[in-house]
Amino acid sequence: MKRVLLKIGYDGTAYHGWQVQPNGITVQSTLQDAIEKMLGKRLAVTGCSRTDAGVHAKEFFCHLDCDETLPETAFVRGLSALLPSDISVLDAKEVAPDFHARYSAKGKTYIYRIFNRNIKDPFLSRYTWQIERSLNIEKMNEFCKSLVGKHDFYAFSSSGRTVTDTVRTVSDCFVWERDGIVSLSITADGFLYNMVRIIVGTAVSVSDGKISPCDTEMILSSKAREKAGITAPPQGLMLDKVYYQECELNA
Amino acid sequence: MKRVLLKIGYDGTAYHGWQVQPNGITVQSTLQDAIEKMLGKRLAVTGCSRTDAGVHAKEFFCHLDCDETLPETAFVRGLSALLPSDISVLDAKEVAPDFHARYSAKGKTYIYRIFNRNIKDPFLSRYTWQIERSLNIEKMNEFCKSLVGKHDFYAFSSSGRTVTDTVRTVSDCFVWERDGIVSLSITADGFLYNMVRIIVGTAVSVSDGKISPCDTEMILSSKAREKAGITAPPQGLMLDKVYYQECELNA
Repeated sequence: MKRVLLKIGYDGTAYHGWQVQPNGITVQSTLQDAIEKMLGKRLAVTGCSRTDAGVHAKEFFCHLDCDETLPETAFVRGLSALLPSDISVLDAKEVAPDFHARYSAKGKTYIYRIFNRNIKDPFLSRYTWQIERSLNIEKMNEFCKSLVGKHDFYAFSSSGRTVTDTVRTVSDCFVWERDGIVSLSITADGFLYNMVRIIVGTAVSVSDGKISPCDTEMILSSKAREKAGITAPPQGLMLDKVYYQECELNA
Repeated sequence: MKRVLLKIGYDGTAYHGWQVQPNGITVQSTLQDAIEKMLGKRLAVTGCSRTDAGVHAKEFFCHLDCDETLPETAFVRGLSALLPSDISVLDAKEVAPDFHARYSAKGKTYIYRIFNRNIKDPFLSRYTWQIERSLNIEKMNEFCKSLVGKHDFYAFSSSGRTVTDTVRTVSDCFVWERDGIVSLSITADGFLYNMVRIIVGTAVSVSDGKISPCDTEMILSSKAREKAGITAPPQGLMLDKVYYQECELNA
């Protein structure tokens, strides 16, 4: 039995998120279908996180156990060819049997994109949240900076959360603007349910002057979801990077 | 009665091209639906060209005649809001009654994008033709240069052509590579049915060494479609610019 770690990428527009659902096509089920076509049997695939419906991944990792000794190219080329055009296998490698796509991850970076213009762009609607009023990058960055560190992010998570420990360490969080696209990048050791989207919604409230960047501590300690901003829509969110220890990646 | 010129943009993936079809949703029919919602009556819209199914437009012009004196914003804002997310109205202005979106156009620039890597990219599949073998940019540019000038492009058009005069003047044609994307830009006073896609297919044959850049004159004078390369797939094609005389744009 060999454990294989796949690095995939996907445009999440057409999917009900990563995780298999009773109704609706998911990335996980689509990947399992393609593996079944290739290997002739259905294998379970474990992902590094549960992205929501409409969320994208520039890179996403998942592992599976199989008996066959297949060359990497069988996954990168063969499996990619069996998948629809919006999912791609970018890399495959054998890892130790105790390596886990989710639990071995040391951290992740998400990038959220806002299209900050007052004209519709038909090529950006799948990948951005459009906000017409001008955003205040400086204030958003003040708020982002106040999130860096080890905090209980309970107030920045939705009721769908599945964990009891809501303390996470944000190592980096910042905003920049280019060609009308305002991007927020956040890196942490882990993320709660809807955490990035609520942080983005709150950053926009800070830009609008409805929440002060000085309120962060109050919001965090209140543990009250309603003190934070709205949950930003999914299509602007992209899982950008997943971090593993190099030594663990070599079986 | 006022003639209004609309500048729109669209992601053509979901559409059976611009022109109204008996079966299938087109950009033209979708735009006419939205205008009907806004004005309460159905108006004919005349486009600057007939883009094929799956072809995109960064800018595309069309005109319509209406009795109402509507502010520009009614079209740019109101109509955009009534359209699906993959079609946008970018600009609107009143033009002279004899201005014609198609016949007043002095020329157009199309850009065709090829993704020249051997790995699938889930975010580029809607907008590029993927070719895994390495392309020879220099040879492609030699071929492109040989097209510049006034020629009978009959051999570079499909049997679906609707015109009898197949002479066109190409003022510019070149290829460049950036981040694995090979782009071909072509500017001409007009284009025949499938002309850009056949030119791209031929440029790829030239890169592959199946056709020599010196063969252009022979292909043109043969007036034989089969001498040219294949018709490149539609999703890589984008109408980039449409040229009108500035003075004509002011009613």
